[in-house]
Formats: sequence, structure tokens, C-alpha cells
Amino acid sequence: MSAYDDLMAFQRETEALGEVAGRLGWDQETVMPLGAAEQRADEIAALEGVLHARRVDPRIGEWLEAAKPEGEVAAAQLRHIRRVYERTARVPARLAAELARVTSVSQGQWARARATDDFAAFAPVLENVVALKREEADCLAAGGDPYDALLDDFEPGATAANLSEMFGALRPRLVALRDAALASPVQPAALEGEFPETGQLEISRRLAIAFGYDFTRGRIDKAVHPFSSGSGNDVRITTRTAPLDPFNCFYSTVHEVGHAAYEQGVDPAYALTPLGRGVSMGVHESQSRIYENQLGRSQAFTGWLHSQMSDVFGDLDLGAGAFYGAVNRLHRGFIRTESDEVQYNLHVLLRFDLERQLIAGSLAVGDLEEAWNARFEADFGYPVERASQGVLQDVHWSVGLFGYFPTYTLGNVYAGCLYRALREAVPDLEADLSQGETAAATGWLREHLQRHGGLYPPRETVERACGFAPNEEPLLDYLEEKFGAIYGL
Amino acid sequence: MSAYDDLMAFQRETEALGEVAGRLGWDQETVMPLGAAEQRADEIAALEGVLHARRVDPRIGEWLEAAKPEGEVAAAQLRHIRRVYERTARVPARLAAELARVTSVSQGQWARARATDDFAAFAPVLENVVALKREEADCLAAGGDPYDALLDDFEPGATAANLSEMFGALRPRLVALRDAALASPVQPAALEGEFPETGQLEISRRLAIAFGYDFTRGRIDKAVHPFSSGSGNDVRITTRTAPLDPFNCFYSTVHEVGHAAYEQGVDPAYALTPLGRGVSMGVHESQSRIYENQLGRSQAFTGWLHSQMSDVFGDLDLGAGAFYGAVNRLHRGFIRTESDEVQYNLHVLLRFDLERQLIAGSLAVGDLEEAWNARFEADFGYPVERASQGVLQDVHWSVGLFGYFPTYTLGNVYAGCLYRALREAVPDLEADLSQGETAAATGWLREHLQRHGGLYPPRETVERACGFAPNEEPLLDYLEEKFGAIYGL
Repeated sequence: MSAYDDLMAFQRETEALGEVAGRLGWDQETVMPLGAAEQRADEIAALEGVLHARRVDPRIGEWLEAAKPEGEVAAAQLRHIRRVYERTARVPARLAAELARVTSVSQGQWARARATDDFAAFAPVLENVVALKREEADCLAAGGDPYDALLDDFEPGATAANLSEMFGALRPRLVALRDAALASPVQPAALEGEFPETGQLEISRRLAIAFGYDFTRGRIDKAVHPFSSGSGNDVRITTRTAPLDPFNCFYSTVHEVGHAAYEQGVDPAYALTPLGRGVSMGVHESQSRIYENQLGRSQAFTGWLHSQMSDVFGDLDLGAGAFYGAVNRLHRGFIRTESDEVQYNLHVLLRFDLERQLIAGSLAVGDLEEAWNARFEADFGYPVERASQGVLQDVHWSVGLFGYFPTYTLGNVYAGCLYRALREAVPDLEADLSQGETAAATGWLREHLQRHGGLYPPRETVERACGFAPNEEPLLDYLEEKFGAIYGL
Repeated sequence: MSAYDDLMAFQRETEALGEVAGRLGWDQETVMPLGAAEQRADEIAALEGVLHARRVDPRIGEWLEAAKPEGEVAAAQLRHIRRVYERTARVPARLAAELARVTSVSQGQWARARATDDFAAFAPVLENVVALKREEADCLAAGGDPYDALLDDFEPGATAANLSEMFGALRPRLVALRDAALASPVQPAALEGEFPETGQLEISRRLAIAFGYDFTRGRIDKAVHPFSSGSGNDVRITTRTAPLDPFNCFYSTVHEVGHAAYEQGVDPAYALTPLGRGVSMGVHESQSRIYENQLGRSQAFTGWLHSQMSDVFGDLDLGAGAFYGAVNRLHRGFIRTESDEVQYNLHVLLRFDLERQLIAGSLAVGDLEEAWNARFEADFGYPVERASQGVLQDVHWSVGLFGYFPTYTLGNVYAGCLYRALREAVPDLEADLSQGETAAATGWLREHLQRHGGLYPPRETVERACGFAPNEEPLLDYLEEKFGAIYGL
């Protein structure tokens, strides 16, 4: 066995154990008995301990030094392994353990503060998390930019400077589009009615099938928050239902199917290796978003969805044309996850700017709520009334996820680029979608992007698929055209 | 930290990882997508590799040497840890790996051979398994009896000599009872009818509640084979349904609830330690059997079950009296798991005698089918017609489980002893059971046996609960009295 083979054999076991950890998370959110929570925390801690020990195993350093990779695939494998090994080694064991300890309880503290709209109660906890993350960022940055070092965990190669430029170009046009749409005399109606759970789950299933989700290598369950979990041949998704809001269920499902399709679509030759999953959060989000929005919320596809809903629930109060408006209507609101295609990115840009200041130390946690509320009113035009609608709405910061939020909007930008290329590659796209048929579109995405897994760096992965340097123009053009038409702008 | 504390901290992590492995098994049998099977094998192998490395970690030897246990509990913990450490160390890594490799594929080979009734196709595989198990037994026995060394994995302290004496006393009285019952002019009728799955699952749930199963720390799912899995606060069971055979579902459920109640009933202070689960397979089976048979198939409890079935399915074709006979009737059959209280043990005794000869080398695998068929006809009175009804019916040997079968009958013997003590301790038992009320009985079992987990050796665990040296008389007396009454003997 060569050093490369030894390293890959070791890595395969680590990847397999990582899959096991992912499955524990799935189990916890879907089927675990409530009384098992404490024991489960011990189980996860034990498994994370094993994984951490493997990630810093000094043999990895020796194998990396001795390995002579042959070809593009082997070089990419080593690049991933080296990256994780060096990053993990930079964080002292004491700090890693302290971060794990603090963030294992801070989520519960956040949930309690959110339930009582009490940011002051949560601020000391968050201060502690931010201080630890700043310390971690300094270790990881090794003299570079600390925020970039955190961002690199989710989007290797991205920098705050590049994202700022891109987001800076997005913000004014999104704000203008939002203002124009909400001020327009044309206002799409909302879909009224109650839609029982069994019918919603039936349509969820039809949507998953329509988007090519492979049920022989996955399953759909209910959970409080929709998510996708696992890679390769065991990629499970969840959805949720609310009787008055069927679109939440349907588009959560399509979104998670997008994530799952990426994982299910990676070349099986990469199974249980670092190449065997989506390459970054941003590229992952590009898949979930293009499935959900550019394809799933298109006029053509909503026509098909309208027929499916009529089939399951009986006549709707809107015809297919108005139904398209109902699916896409902008509305006043405070919550990122309940937002629409236009305003969603404004939610993200706000968080990106604030979290950079937190990590840079130019914004104190004590001033965060005020800063949030001021920025929100500037971008959305109305004030935040409660912390649970504002600074306390997302779990991310409570568990130390800094550098994660921007990948949502980066994913939307990538989705915009991919959609531009996809429309050229699949001229019959609209005719397909109007029949609930996505095979040509999803097949193109699998062939040009998903199958590569981690073979190329994230941005290169998207560039190779769409054929041009990714930028924000296609997304903005798409949004302005789509919502211009819906709102008669 | 003392050496004992260090050892226990290490052990807790190992136990937690063992729970994770158990959960993977549950997942595989209940919810896993079919296409994930191969990937799952890699995940399980990686986790088993971690567990094996921990079990032979040389630090355990150092801690064991330095530890100064204080009190009964600490001494018992060390006894368990030392036992596993020494046993694991006795088997060379090469042999352990080869056994794992061979038995990971032999189950599939067995299943294929069973499907085509082709023992000859399976014989070479089984020969390989037997050869490896004999080699392992020699390593484990360290000069003692090889079969006892294997038995010790499932029933520490038991020996083939002791079991042979006990089983030798059982066999003639069971054969005589079986003959007399099947020759009697009094023959209970079978329950006729079709019983839809939803109703069976509803009654399953009522039965689990009636027997005190804690749903906040467990759940019931469907699976091909009923089983119980996990310990402490996450103990899950499965059941199955067949429309024409509702008792299979109901008594599988009660049986697994018995196993689960033992795990759920162990003193929480022992959680994630070697004391925190059932002490042996035999004692475990005593709990599942006393729940299923002595309590669940009693005349009093079947009266309540009759009312539940009438409630869910409408009027039955049998009244409560005849229903008791239908639940307990003996029938001709070949399959151990479909057998009744009397004949079940004859199935086990047959396997016990044959597997001892296989391990001793006095029976060749090539002669096994003939030996099986001859013994079956001697004990049951009619010939085996197909290998799938005979030597190929059980999975155990294919995966190397030698020394496991006798614990089934040992469990029945222990259940007989416990039931004798329980009847004295709970004078109102029959009145309770006739109302579907088991709290006094199951509370007595929890208090006198289940809560101790692994604190005492298996046989001592039972003796402390029943107050006398366990022996086969109470079981035989119970069976002869019960079936004598049913069959008018």
C-alpha cells in the first residue's frame, strides 16, 4: 500500500463515521423519543471525540508528506484532506473543547431568550460565543483576515471583500425592486383555504418525484425544521406542514430535494471520500435554490402544481394565473425563512454586515439589537417590534455559525448564473416544467455540476457549469424580469 | 482523577459508542432506504473498528491494575470491564477480522440457501464459520471447555454440563406433555378471521402500555423480525403484522416489551456503564418470556385481550374461554419462532445438542442436516420435509452465534422460577391481569430483578429475585398444570 492508499483508507473510515454522526442528527430530529435527549448528547459527544481524534491524527501529516498523488482526482482528495487537517491543527484542543462545551448549551439559552423576546438575557451567552469564535478565527487566520478564516469553513476560497462587492451591487437594486413591488397598484392575491396534512404530504411526495429525488436512496419524514442529511446512498430529507400555508411545505420539500439531489448526484466513485459530497454551502444552496425558485416557482411549473393541488384538494379559489402570483407574492414580514425571493437576500446582507463587525470587534454584542433594528428599518421600511422577529430569530450565531449566512445569498447568485446557462442548454424548459417534468433540467445540473462533488473548488465548480465567471447580474436580471412582470412594473 | 475514574470515563464513551452502533442496527431494520445497504455496511465496519480498538486499548489493562474499587458497584463494574478486556485480548486480531469478514457475508449466503432449500449450497460456508468459531473458542477457553467459552459470551458463568443436566430433566417431561396434549380428545379451536393491520397495531400499543412500556423513552415500529434495541433512555421495539395471525403481532410485542422493560428498568445510576443493561441473554429472555407467557398468555390476561380485540375488531368467533385455548393451543409445526410454550423448548434442546457437537468436532457440517432431521422426528413425531423448515430455519449459526440458543430455554426456566415467586408476592395477580393491569407484577420484577442490571452475576440475579436456587421444576410444574387444564389431561 502506498502512503496515498493508506491515507485514503483511513479517510474512508473517518467519512463513514461522519455519516454515522449525521444519521444521529437525523434520528434526533425525526424519530428519537423525547426522553433520550440527554443520553443522545453523550452519544454524540463520544462520536465527535472519535472524529476529532481522527482529524488530528499525526499519521495524516506523515501520509500527506509521503503521498504522491496521480491525476486530478487524487490531487483534489489530498487538497481537501490537507485543508481540514491544517485547519483542525491550528485550533488548540483546549479552545476546541471549550467551543464545543459552550455551544452545546447556548442553543437552549437562545431558544429560551427568543421565547421571551429577551435579548438582554441572551447577550452574555452570545458575548462568550463571539469571544471564543474571535479567538478561533485568529488561530485559523494565521495572520490573515479573521472573518475570512471563518467563512472558509463554509465556502473555501471566498473572501469578505469579494462578497461585499457582490452584495453591494445587489442591495440597491433589491431594495428598489422591493419598494416598487410593494408600492405597485398590481398586488397578487394570496391563496386562501385550509389544506389538510395528508394532502400536503401527498403533494410533497409528488414534488419530490417530479424533481427526481431517489427514494431508493432516501426518505421523507416530518420534522420541526426542514433539512437534508447524509450523502451518497442515504440522503434523507424532512418537511413540515401548516394547514393554512401549504407553500411552506411544498417549497421546503423542493428546496431540500435540491440539496439531496446534489448529494445523490455525486459520482459514486467518490463515495465516502472528501469528494463525495457537495463542495461548499454556497454551491449547495445554489442547487436547493434553483430547484425551489427558478424551476419550482416558475410560471410553467406552478401551472402544474396548481393542477396537482386541485387534484388533491378540489377546486382552488385562484386560477392558474393568479396562483402563480400567490406563490411569488412579496409580503411585509420579519422572518428570513418565511421571506420571498426578493427580500430574502436583504435579510442575509443585514446579517453578513453585522457578523463581520462582531468578529472584527467593531460592534459590541450589547449594541447588536439596536444595530439590527436600525438596519432592518432602513432596508425594509418598517421597524422590528420584538427580538424574536429580529436579532433572536435565527439559531446560527448561538451555536457559533459565523460566516455561514452569506453562503445563502451566494447560493442565490450562483443559482442565477446556472439558470441563465440552463435556459440556453434546455430550450424546451418551460414546456417541460408546465408538465411537471424536470428531467432535462435536473439532468443538466447533475451532469454539469452535481456529479463533480468536491473535485473543483466551489467557484470553479459553478464557473465550469455555467460557462462564465459567476456574478450577480443574472440573478438581478431574473428577479427584475420576473417580479416586474408579476407586479406590472 | 483516580485510575478507576479514568477507566470509567473511558468506558462511558465506549458504552455511548456501543449505543450508537445499536441505533444503526435499528435504523437498518426499520427506516433505512434499501439502496443504502452497502454504504451502511461500511459505516458499521468503521464504527466496529473504533469499538474494537477501544476494547483492546492497553490503557484498560493499566487502569485495571491500578484501580482500587470501593464498594459493590465499583467491584462489579471492574468485573465486567476486566472480563471483556481479557476475552477480547485472547482472540488474535487476524482471527477477529476474519470472523467479522466471513460472517458479514455468510448471512446473505444462508438466506439464499434457505430460499432454495439447499443445505448443500450453504454447507461449505457454514464449515468455514464453524472452523473459525472453533479456533476462537480454543483461544477463549485457554485450556477449558471450548463450547463453554462461547456460551460465556451470552451467559457468563453457565456451563454446558449444568445446562445439559437441566435440559436433560426437561426433555422427557416436555415430550410426554406434547404427546399427551396432541393425542387428547380435547383440542382447543384456533381463532378464525382476518384482522387488519391498523387494528393490530392499535392493540399492540394498548398491550405495550398495559405492560408499562415507557413511550417517552422508546417507540414501536414495524420490522420484518420483532426485536428490542438500545438501553437506558432509548429502548426501541419493533413488531410485525399478518392479517390471519394477530397473536403473532400481539405476543411479539409483549415479548419485546419484556426485553425493553428490563433495559428501561435498570437503575439510572448505571446509565452508560457495563451495569446499565440486562446482565445476560438468559436473564433477558426470562423477562421477555414471563411478560409474554406466564403473564400475557394467562387465562386472566387473555380475558382482557379478548375484550380489547372485540372492541377493535367487533365480535370474535370465540368466547373468552375458548379464546384462552386458541391463544395457547399446541400445533404441528417445524419453526421454532412459531412454536408454543411446550414445544418451543424442544426446538432449543435440539439445537443445543447439535451445536455442542459441531464445536466439539464430533459432528461434521456435512452430516448436520441428517442429524437435525433424525432428532426432530424423534422429539416431534413427524419428519422434516425441507431444509428451510429444518436446519436452515434460523440465522444464528450463519453469523457465528454458537452458545446463544440455550439461553432461550434457560430464560424460560428462569421465568418459571420468577413466576412462582411472583405469585406469592402478588396475591391479587389474577384479578389484576383480568383487568389488563400489570403494575404490581411488573413493579415486582423491576424492584427485585430489572433495576440491578449487571450488578450481580446472571444466576445470582435470578436467585436473589426468586429466593431459591433456579431450577427447572417450577417451569415444568407450570406447563403441566396449565396445559393439563387446557387439554383435559
